[in-house]
Formats: sequence, structure tokens, C-alpha cells
Amino acid sequence: MMNTQLTLVQMIERAEKYFPKKEIVSRTSPSTIHRLTYKEVGKRTRALSNALEKLGIKHGDRVGTLAWNHHRHLEAYFAVPCMGAVLHTINMRLSDDHLIYIINHAEDQILLIDEDIVPIIEKIKDQLLSVKAFIIMTDRDTLPETVLDPVYSYEQLLAKSDPNYQFSKNINENEPAGMCYTSATTGKPKGVIYTHRGIVLHSFALGLADTKGLSESDVNMPMVPMFHVNAWGIPFASTWFGSKQVLPGPNFTPQLICEFIESEKVTTTAGVPTIWLGVLKELETKNYDMSSLRLMVCGGAAAPKGLIKKYRETFGIPFVHAYGLTETTPLLTVSNLKSDQLDLSEEEKLEIRSKQGMVVPGLEVKIINQQGEVAHDGKEMGELLVRGPWIADSHYKDDRSKESFRDGWFYTGDIATVDEDGYIKLVDRTKDLVKSGGEWISSVDLENALMAHEAVLEAAVVAVPHPKWQERPIACVVLKDSYRDTVTKDDLISYLKPQFAKWWLPDDIIFLSEIPKTSVGKFLKRQLREQLKDHLAGV
Amino acid sequence: MMNTQLTLVQMIERAEKYFPKKEIVSRTSPSTIHRLTYKEVGKRTRALSNALEKLGIKHGDRVGTLAWNHHRHLEAYFAVPCMGAVLHTINMRLSDDHLIYIINHAEDQILLIDEDIVPIIEKIKDQLLSVKAFIIMTDRDTLPETVLDPVYSYEQLLAKSDPNYQFSKNINENEPAGMCYTSATTGKPKGVIYTHRGIVLHSFALGLADTKGLSESDVNMPMVPMFHVNAWGIPFASTWFGSKQVLPGPNFTPQLICEFIESEKVTTTAGVPTIWLGVLKELETKNYDMSSLRLMVCGGAAAPKGLIKKYRETFGIPFVHAYGLTETTPLLTVSNLKSDQLDLSEEEKLEIRSKQGMVVPGLEVKIINQQGEVAHDGKEMGELLVRGPWIADSHYKDDRSKESFRDGWFYTGDIATVDEDGYIKLVDRTKDLVKSGGEWISSVDLENALMAHEAVLEAAVVAVPHPKWQERPIACVVLKDSYRDTVTKDDLISYLKPQFAKWWLPDDIIFLSEIPKTSVGKFLKRQLREQLKDHLAGV
Repeated sequence: MMNTQLTLVQMIERAEKYFPKKEIVSRTSPSTIHRLTYKEVGKRTRALSNALEKLGIKHGDRVGTLAWNHHRHLEAYFAVPCMGAVLHTINMRLSDDHLIYIINHAEDQILLIDEDIVPIIEKIKDQLLSVKAFIIMTDRDTLPETVLDPVYSYEQLLAKSDPNYQFSKNINENEPAGMCYTSATTGKPKGVIYTHRGIVLHSFALGLADTKGLSESDVNMPMVPMFHVNAWGIPFASTWFGSKQVLPGPNFTPQLICEFIESEKVTTTAGVPTIWLGVLKELETKNYDMSSLRLMVCGGAAAPKGLIKKYRETFGIPFVHAYGLTETTPLLTVSNLKSDQLDLSEEEKLEIRSKQGMVVPGLEVKIINQQGEVAHDGKEMGELLVRGPWIADSHYKDDRSKESFRDGWFYTGDIATVDEDGYIKLVDRTKDLVKSGGEWISSVDLENALMAHEAVLEAAVVAVPHPKWQERPIACVVLKDSYRDTVTKDDLISYLKPQFAKWWLPDDIIFLSEIPKTSVGKFLKRQLREQLKDHLAGV
Repeated sequence: MMNTQLTLVQMIERAEKYFPKKEIVSRTSPSTIHRLTYKEVGKRTRALSNALEKLGIKHGDRVGTLAWNHHRHLEAYFAVPCMGAVLHTINMRLSDDHLIYIINHAEDQILLIDEDIVPIIEKIKDQLLSVKAFIIMTDRDTLPETVLDPVYSYEQLLAKSDPNYQFSKNINENEPAGMCYTSATTGKPKGVIYTHRGIVLHSFALGLADTKGLSESDVNMPMVPMFHVNAWGIPFASTWFGSKQVLPGPNFTPQLICEFIESEKVTTTAGVPTIWLGVLKELETKNYDMSSLRLMVCGGAAAPKGLIKKYRETFGIPFVHAYGLTETTPLLTVSNLKSDQLDLSEEEKLEIRSKQGMVVPGLEVKIINQQGEVAHDGKEMGELLVRGPWIADSHYKDDRSKESFRDGWFYTGDIATVDEDGYIKLVDRTKDLVKSGGEWISSVDLENALMAHEAVLEAAVVAVPHPKWQERPIACVVLKDSYRDTVTKDDLISYLKPQFAKWWLPDDIIFLSEIPKTSVGKFLKRQLREQLKDHLAGV
């Protein structure tokens, strides 16, 4: 067979050639919505490559972005890799220390920055060692006042550059196309390199009828940020397949999400549970036409069973669990039903849908504990290992790589079970698992049960050191406003009792007004563990 | 990213692990239907690898099959490549000369033969230079009488071999997994190598929602033979995705096809126009429940527009054109509608569906003539060139390779147009095109128009040498029985007149009782050209 390389060049060129009139809807600010076609985005992308080349970017150089979901970010998604350089998407919500660390560690040469992010970079600019130029992605005709230097206007650069620039023909599929750092809860962020090959194969996986089936007829709106694992790969696959894209920009609200779904006839969307909790509230207070939606993907953290049930049964929205990590590009599993499960009861189907799902074609997983591979019984817990062509083989220039990458497998740090049908269920992070008297207790199972209670808005369960049992679970609970002060610790313990073995029940329940979260909305359990570390010392 | 190789091992292991109870329905003779699960087929496949190894097959050796579509052939599809050897599927309908040529040229070490094919091999056995053993795939407990030697019973070998045999871990994705020879209409057959990588990527393409969307919930019945470009890749993709498979065996009839679709609830099937013409007749005479069918793929040759219309409008069966070649694994294009074409009139949609369609993601095509790339206007004709990771880069050990493989492209030998939406339409083979007075006339367009006439069963148009115009078209027509002797040459010419420029009209129409065909059912135009070469000499 031909030695054709799997690169991103083919993806954008396919969109230009076969879907020139298809639309990208891009919201760059609460007051500005752009509508562009793939033909226009193609020309702008080529001009951006040319502009970067003129600014000195060479094959292999890193170009950073600090930007929301919009068309200019999409253009960078292709312009940078298709000239042979590396797109480093940066989470602007990281701490200044972490931002400085990752920009220096990646050795970013140029930063592409949204106008509202400029102040963040101005603050740290003197500590950025490799950055040679800043490009501001503003809608305005003139550059904002800034101390960044040298600084360019994105649109002015494009206007002066070649819209017929030829993308690189010399990219090997194993070369880096992109990179992303994990939003570490402990230590420095870890970098992950995405190769052209990895992204192309991952895009194939997103298009499979058995996973998300992304297709030309779709209107895809990723709510997951484009700085977070390539918005789960949706912009790449959408462009390749010629889907219409809706990019919701900064500061979106549940209302905006619902309005976009209704007005743009969005067919697929994807985000973390927090987003869908917000949208659910919106749907409960106001009527929207959501009938265009064929897929609402939830990932990043496990969705409570009640959330899945509500979406499916009350609103008829196909809410589907998916799972992956920064190191996995990210798609690992999707929880679609197999054909022989369609006749199960609603309760049984919900049970399956609340799992993370089946591994997608192209990857291999196994779950191991000290006894070896776990039984496929949905009960025995172990750490989930994964391998395949879109799984990282190391953390970028990081001595900690050997902790997670061993014997050809990536150790996810997630504790999971697998049932006889092959559905994986995450029960915890290795570090969040409660190890009580030699047995394992899943903090996530307890959290999900608590969050299914009508009074509970959020719940986080953490392992707290215990003099006798080594560790015991403590639950931190946020009650819904209407239930505040009417539900007690004993109420919740009594509610949990019939669902769990006695020794699983939390030793205490602490009511909080909010659970601390990471910049991508995950519970920051490390902080809770720290606060509660002496809570059971005197028992 | 990890350097995980794309091999067939992963495909069969996924079926074993996640779809152990899914069924393969296999008809090995008119009186025998087997039902096996992927678990059973997995064990049998491993035993077959082990048996072949014990018979001396090593990494890289070729193993030939002469077999119909059934479970044993499916087992060979994985057993041979997954031990690192090469599966050579042989078209048993080739002439003895061609059979001898390709078996010797491929240097097949072992032949796996269906019982009814044994006499064909017995006849030529003394001329087979590399074959060291014969395995007969019989349902019976004992071997049939045969002069083949040494000869083994497939089932007896499996019974003595290891069902837990471990597939090779040392396969590079660029190594050959399979091979197939073209059924040449002139000269010796040409061999094509399919690599592991090519087959895996092609299987991804078959699973895309925008192509055929093969999935776990499908019941796939390939009517295209498993010796013909891997039954268009369907057995590979079906196994990977865990689809139920229905393998129809030898000597099937239109009635059997309809009965299988009805009883096994087949959702996708694929074959050449001849098959679907036969099935249409069957559907017109008897009622069947075809409601399970979501996709009837037609390839190998262009389907007449009337056939597509009849299936869609009269029977509500989603009849879809696809196109590919032995050298292309084979999927190149599929003629699905784009979302903005769904509102067109039925006539306009039919027009699009009668084209070969859009190139699938992962491949690139271009159409060139002496002026360079043709305009995307649906009119300008040129030769179709293709490249991509599942396109052959040469003919196997064949000096003729340089005719078809040049500048990194495969020259298909097909003359095509492309419209502004990117839909490719084949208008002819380079060698069948009629070159009249410096202009090109598509023999296929004329044939399709003729075959749309109610009286015409088949029509072949060939270029015949002409003293003044260089070449002129002559039509060879087979009338339907009920119209025989009632339709004249002038009737057909008058019928064609409003549809074509005057100089396109055939100089003569010759009525035949049958159009000569190749072993895979394509018109053998070479023979007609030879017969008619002096037909216009005296004008």
C-alpha cells in the first residue's frame, strides 16, 4: 500500500474542497457572532500559516494559544500543525506559576491570545523565556493598549498574508501536531504530545457509527474548551467530515447554550457534568426546542445517574457518557447500548448508561490489581490501563513519565470495574480511593448515591486518615437552596444505608456551601483532604 | 503517542472479548447452515493458525483459499494474517491458465479448498510449483476421494490444534496481510498486496457514519465473494465492530438472498448490479419482508438508474452506489446525499445517487486529462487518479506496475467527471471510451440510457474502428424476452436521440441473446470489440 502519511493537512483540504459552503458559527464575545464558510476558514488558515512563517516559525516550533472556542482558534488548530509546527493549547485559568511553567517548558515561540486574556499574559510576560511575539485575536480594527511587545493584530496579519499558502508536504505522521498540559491537582502540569497520526486515527474513531458517529449532516457544538484536550477532538473531526460547527466563545451561560441549540439546530454537543447540570436547570425553567439534538456527550467526570435519567426521560435528549484523559486524545470509551441491551428495562439501561462504556475500536484496555487482571463481573476493582495509537507514550520531557507509562501501557490512575459485556465503570481515582482496613471503598459510588438524593446539589467523598482503619470516608455535601437546613446528616446516612455495606458508610457528613473545583470544573479533593486530615484523629 | 501497530490481531481479539455471543450464520452448502458465535470462531481461528504453523507456514508465507462465503473462509481471513502469513484469496472461476499463473506467482504454500472446488485444483495440481499441502474445507467427517496429496481435512486439523494459540505480537503494520489478483480481461492477472495497516484503516472508513456506518447493531451479508477484494472488506470490519454476519455460501439464488434478509433480519448487504437485478425480479414476483435492510450497496459496476429508482421508490430499500477497485481495498467513493441535498426533488436525488459518489475520508482523488485537472462541472472528462493509505503502490512483482502507478498516484483507468459538490461519476474505462473525431464519447452513458428503456435487459457499447472518425460507437443489446422481435434498431435510436448530441448516437445497434461477461459478471467488451472490429470498415 502507499506510504501516505496520516496528517491534518488532508483534513482541512477535504473541508475546503468538498464542503466550501458549510458554515462555522463563531461567537467571539457576548455581542459578536461571526458566520464563515469552510472556504473562508481555509483561506484564513492558509494566511495564518503564512503569517507565522513570516514571523519566523519553523517546522517543529511550538505556537501557544490562550483562547476560547471560536473560528480564529479553529484556524490555529490547522494553520500551526499544517505548516509542520506544534499547536500548544493553553488553559488560561491555570495559576500564573503554572502558566509560566508550561509556556517555558513547551518553549512556545509565539502566543495567540484572546483580547480578554491579554491582562493575564501581561502580568507574567517578563518570566516567559522563549516567546518572541504576541498575536492578539481581537475583533477590533486596532490593537488594544498593551505592554506586550512585539505585538500584532491577528486580522491585520491575515490581511497581509497569502490565502493560497501551500501547507507542508513534508510532515511525517509521527511528528507532533499539538500538545496540551494536564491541569495538575498536585505538582507541575504534565505535557502531552499529540501526533498527526494520533489525531487522524482519533478522528476516525469519532466518526464511527458505534462511537459518536460524527458526520457531514451534524451540527457540532463543543462546550468543552478548545484548550482542553483539543475540545475532545471535535473541531478536527468536524472539519474533516464537513460538519457545521458552532463555537460558543467566552462566558457562555446555560441560556446561551439552549438558544444556540435551538437556533443553529445543533445535533451534537459535549461537555462536563457541571455544564449539563446548569443546562438542566435552564430547561426546567424555560421551554426550548431541543429536538435537533441527537447526542449530548458528557465526559471529564462521571455524570450522576439522576442527571442522565432526567435528560433522557424528562427531555428526551440522548445523553451519553464518554470517558478519556489528556493522555488519550481523549476518547477511550463511550457508553452506547449494544443491540441486545435495547430490550432491557429503563432502569437496567440507565445502569449501563451510567457506566463509562465500551472501549472504542483501535484501543486496548485492561484492569489490574495486585491479583492480576480483574474478573469481568462488574465488581472487582483495579487500575485501568490502556494502549493504542492515540495514547501518549510519555509526559513531555518529564521525569515523572515512568510513573504512568510502563510495560507499553498507560496507567490511567483510574480505578475501575468491567462487567461481562465489557462496560467499564470508574469507581475512583487511585489517589481518591478510600483504603479502609485492607478493603477498597469507592468515593465516587458514594458521591453518586448522595447526588441522586433530591436535596443534594453536589457531594464529594474523601479519604481521611483514621487511627484504626488507616482511612475512612467523609462526605462533603452541598444542599440545594430549597433544602438548606431541612436535611440532616442522619437523613443522608439513613438514605445511604440500604444501598451500601455498613462499612462503606461515611464516618461523617459535612455541609458546605460549595465544593472547591479545578479550573476545568473537577472536584478539588486534594484541598478537602487537606482541610479534613485531622478530622478523625481523635476517634 | 504509542507506536502501536495497526494489525488484524486487534480486530479478532475485540470480537472475542466484547462480542463472544454474537452470531455468524454460515451456509456451506444448499443443505447446511451453521451457526457459530465469535467465541467459537475465535477459538477455531486460533486453532487454524496453530494447524498452519504445524504444517510449516511461517511469517510472510502465502496461504491460498479457493472458497465461497462461509465461516471457515472467515476463520482463514484472520488465522493466516494473525500468524504473520499472507492470505491469498483466489477466484476459482478464473481459467486454468490464470489459476496456475497466480498460485505460482504468489508462491502459495498451502491451499484451503472448498469440497466442490477440489476437481478444479486436481486438474492443475501438477503445474503448481510451490504448494506443499492441500486442506479441504468439508462438512463431512471424512475426506472426499481425491488425488491431491498431501491432503488434510480442515475440521480434523482444527480438532487436533490449540484453540488458545497466541497470535503473533511481531507484525509490523506495513507487512502484507492479504493479497488478491485482478480478474484480467487482457494479459495475466495482476496481484495486489493488502497490508495490515491498509485493512485496518479501510475498516475504520467502512464504520464512518458518512460511508456505510457498519456497526455492532448491524447484520451484514456480503453477496460479493470473499475471493473478490476481501468481500469489499466487510468481513474484517464486521468482526472488528462485532456485527452479526450472514455468509451465504455457494450457489445462492435471488430467492435465498431474500429469504436470508427476511429470516436473519439483515441490515446491510453488498453486491454487483447483476445480483440486484436478480433480486429485483424475485421481489416483483413474491412478497418478502425487507424492512430490516438499512443499506443495499451496489458496486463492481455502475447500476442503471432505473434499478436504483425501482429499489428506492417501489420497495423502499436504501440502495446506494459505492465504487472501488482491487487496487483500492476497495472503497473509494460512496454516493450518499449531503444534508443540503435532502430537499431536492426525487429526480435530482436519483441523479446524484446514480453517480459513484464522494471520496471517503482518508483518500485523495483527482481527475486529469491532457489539459490538466478537469473542472468540477460534472462534464469535463478525465482519468481518475487516487492516493491514500489503503491504495496499492504497485502490482505484486509485476513489470506492468509502472503503467498504473506514477508520481505517487494510482491511475485507475477509469474515465470520470466530478461535479461542483465533489460527486464523481464514472463515464467509462480508458480502454472502452470511444474516441470519435478528437472528442470523447462515454460508452457507459449510452449503455445506461439504453438499459433504462423498458425493453432492454442489457446493453454494451463498444468503440469500433472507423475509417473517417477513428472510432465510432456500436451498441450490443439484449432485449427482455417479452419484447423480443417487437423493438427495432430505429426504435432505440429514436429513443436515444433526445438524450444525446447527434454525434454520440451509435452507428449501429446489434441484437444479441447475451452479453459475454467476465468471471465476476462484468461485460467482456474486449470480446465484442474483437468480433466487431471490421463492422464499420466498409462505410
